[in-house]
Amino acid sequence: MDKLISLAKRRGFIYQGSEIYGGLAGTWDYGPLGVLLKENIKALWLKTFRDERDDMYGLDSAIIMNPRVWEASGHVEGFSDPLVECEKCHNRFRTDHILPKNIYDTVMGRLHDPDLATKIVKRTKDEVENTNPHLKETYPGQGLDLTRREYDKKVDEYKRGVGVVLKVALEENHIACPNCGKIDWGMPRQFNMMFKTQIGAIDNDSSISYLRPETAQGIFVNFKNVIDSFHPKIPFGIAQIGKAFRNEISPRDFIFRVREMEQMEVEYFIKKDDWEKYFEEWREKMHDFAKILGIKAHELEVPENDRAHYSMRTIDFEFEYPFGQKELWGLAYRTDYDLKAHSAASGVDLNYLDEETGERFTPHVIEPSLGVDRTVLAVLLSAYTEDELGGESRVYLKLPREIAPIRAAVFPLLKNKPELVDKAREVYKMLKKEFPSAMFDDNGNIGKRYRRQDEIGTPFCITVDFDTLIDDTVTVRDRDSGEQKRVNIKDLKEAIG
Amino acid sequence: MDKLISLAKRRGFIYQGSEIYGGLAGTWDYGPLGVLLKENIKALWLKTFRDERDDMYGLDSAIIMNPRVWEASGHVEGFSDPLVECEKCHNRFRTDHILPKNIYDTVMGRLHDPDLATKIVKRTKDEVENTNPHLKETYPGQGLDLTRREYDKKVDEYKRGVGVVLKVALEENHIACPNCGKIDWGMPRQFNMMFKTQIGAIDNDSSISYLRPETAQGIFVNFKNVIDSFHPKIPFGIAQIGKAFRNEISPRDFIFRVREMEQMEVEYFIKKDDWEKYFEEWREKMHDFAKILGIKAHELEVPENDRAHYSMRTIDFEFEYPFGQKELWGLAYRTDYDLKAHSAASGVDLNYLDEETGERFTPHVIEPSLGVDRTVLAVLLSAYTEDELGGESRVYLKLPREIAPIRAAVFPLLKNKPELVDKAREVYKMLKKEFPSAMFDDNGNIGKRYRRQDEIGTPFCITVDFDTLIDDTVTVRDRDSGEQKRVNIKDLKEAIG
Repeated sequence: MDKLISLAKRRGFIYQGSEIYGGLAGTWDYGPLGVLLKENIKALWLKTFRDERDDMYGLDSAIIMNPRVWEASGHVEGFSDPLVECEKCHNRFRTDHILPKNIYDTVMGRLHDPDLATKIVKRTKDEVENTNPHLKETYPGQGLDLTRREYDKKVDEYKRGVGVVLKVALEENHIACPNCGKIDWGMPRQFNMMFKTQIGAIDNDSSISYLRPETAQGIFVNFKNVIDSFHPKIPFGIAQIGKAFRNEISPRDFIFRVREMEQMEVEYFIKKDDWEKYFEEWREKMHDFAKILGIKAHELEVPENDRAHYSMRTIDFEFEYPFGQKELWGLAYRTDYDLKAHSAASGVDLNYLDEETGERFTPHVIEPSLGVDRTVLAVLLSAYTEDELGGESRVYLKLPREIAPIRAAVFPLLKNKPELVDKAREVYKMLKKEFPSAMFDDNGNIGKRYRRQDEIGTPFCITVDFDTLIDDTVTVRDRDSGEQKRVNIKDLKEAIG
Repeated sequence: MDKLISLAKRRGFIYQGSEIYGGLAGTWDYGPLGVLLKENIKALWLKTFRDERDDMYGLDSAIIMNPRVWEASGHVEGFSDPLVECEKCHNRFRTDHILPKNIYDTVMGRLHDPDLATKIVKRTKDEVENTNPHLKETYPGQGLDLTRREYDKKVDEYKRGVGVVLKVALEENHIACPNCGKIDWGMPRQFNMMFKTQIGAIDNDSSISYLRPETAQGIFVNFKNVIDSFHPKIPFGIAQIGKAFRNEISPRDFIFRVREMEQMEVEYFIKKDDWEKYFEEWREKMHDFAKILGIKAHELEVPENDRAHYSMRTIDFEFEYPFGQKELWGLAYRTDYDLKAHSAASGVDLNYLDEETGERFTPHVIEPSLGVDRTVLAVLLSAYTEDELGGESRVYLKLPREIAPIRAAVFPLLKNKPELVDKAREVYKMLKKEFPSAMFDDNGNIGKRYRRQDEIGTPFCITVDFDTLIDDTVTVRDRDSGEQKRVNIKDLKEAIG
């Protein structure tokens, strides 16, 4: 991983965000080669999931939406992480990250256990009353202000049953602070992950909004607009690429867990009875897409109590990152939850009228959701290869040619021979028309140029030499095998296409 | 304009943001056809200004940056609008919008007039002292708290010379509140237009950041990264497309003045002495680009006192919108202001080392800056045409074929003849490989289909009829002239390419 991060920075794929100011955790900037790689991945997604199909519609909705969108979608209430603060060093952590997963899951499940619930209520009451033996009698209103505040705080905590259970779990399992090593936990509490901002010049609640935490809601909110403009026949989908923001408390693992991300999402609208059929269809398409990108996705069926509130079935497509097998993409059957919620909250009818049968109903939704940044990461990790070539060790990116940032590099064999340089420029210019990312390089010896191109995943290096001046052929060197063959200039497009 | 807004909504170009919730002022969602149009414009910009050149590098930097970026760039201090509140109805307005432009400019210029300055100081002192005749003696510390606060407030206002002059100008020119018609103005004050947000879980000042109000700073902050990865020879440029956000107090005029916008910006790094040469070069390129898009840009040399603090020369490229001639694009000579400011604030050397001459210096910058949304608006307005064709009035979008959302529509002459439908589908599939935006339509009669395609600016309509089944020719109908010619299917690509 460190090798990849270093290569990504050195060669201009991905830089730390705001780097000269010491960075800003969870933000990353795509450099010149990263932009090309990302653009190629997005273009491939658009081609595969939108443009090659007759049942898909594009959309680009705003990042800042009316706050009522996030109330209706459940994000204001429920889009939160359980945070816990170390009372010693005051660093904060996600409780579900510092507790081992099996313990966290057990704890969350144990909430349904009535015996445990009674035990927790007892323990919390005891704690409250032990804080000050006089509290029972003095409260309310008769104790010192400070004591009263402490009591209120405890009662508040008491209400947060989940927090108490998590605290107990941390203590009973001797989980130490990852920062200072002490075990002195505060009360875990829910922290909403949406970035807030204020709109307009007047400071009041009505002007608070959020940066969208997912692009999906932009699609649901425009469902009626697309219906009215295009009268699509069901099933049909709306596809969108765009930024989303999550106030992650501990962003980490390079571009895996970030605060600002890009998503490629489809909401595919279907009749309720068809959901299994289309779920399977999209599942297959996602695997096909992984194959084109050269990455291996492992399926994980998400169990009921881990699924989002709107989902009846979710499959995570996971990838073997160096830091473990974790989520890459998701496929969810969102039912008719979102359209119904927005219809109820907005008062606007979001039904679909089947013009042939006269039937009117709320469509159900299959959602294949792909993170652009995680895809870039998985693609780079899958492509990163160290091997030996001609007795020398080398690093190269085995990127599929469709998404490699540079499709081909053109070299003159020697940079101090104007006739070679001119001819190479001519070949370069010709290629650039077909492959805009083609590149010219006359820096250093050929071996060095090959290695530089290997490292950025350029599938083909084309060298113009003295034979070229005679017979119009060039050498085309294959990145993966290192093999070279002579190709006539007029056949170049096909050779690298 | 109303006709265009209505067409844009009806046909799926542009919808009001969060529409089902009553909208959110200053946000707009691009529908399926708007997305295609916008993508085509962006692709053309990337091709012209990045990919076809050997001296350009791409970038995609994060929207949320370290707040120190905005301190160094001057945005925290200076990126603000003069707002004034009506004391009667409490609506707020931009002072520079409700004062006629000539008066506003005069007022702003008159600040250099020492006589006027004296008069203002006098008037403000009088006001302060007249609020309470005893104030002079009682202050500081001896009056009532309320009086003291009022005094403080007046002194604060007194310091804001500009605010006072603007207030006087509003009153002397009898400018009434556009909302309630009263003349009862508060003190105009500066309102920062950056959207604020908070990062991380701890509520303190250090975690405040902003949504970027321009993409440019992302480029300056990555200047060193690009230099280190690519060692470009000067002059060279960094090009970026991305969202930017401005908390406009009165968003209006469709997608002209919005809160969430997309920008296409180049920062072109040069030697100081070359600035005039490259300024002229980019000026010409911008006019060329306008021509390709089918829009007419009028140049406005921005006078010194209207230029941004960093600029030594700025040309606005203005467009004749229905609401007046206003800014479309900008070309600015930003000097070395930004790199110097970031270097000083971050402590990181942002000089350029000329490897050939050994010279080390801070490059100067030419910035051609284009708003995507304003470009879309100007393109749509320029394309919108009403004329008569075959004795019938029609509306069509005269979009250049390179950016039209749908390059060609394929029709079977009759929808109830399977042999025509099958053949038309075959032609459609063939075309779609070359032109992914090609579309199939068999809805309604041919005349209606033509009109529908005219309205969304499709340059070519291709009809498969009974002759097609015999001789493999189709009719190709030209959007602008309405003329039809027969073309062999195998020559179709060229005919519409």
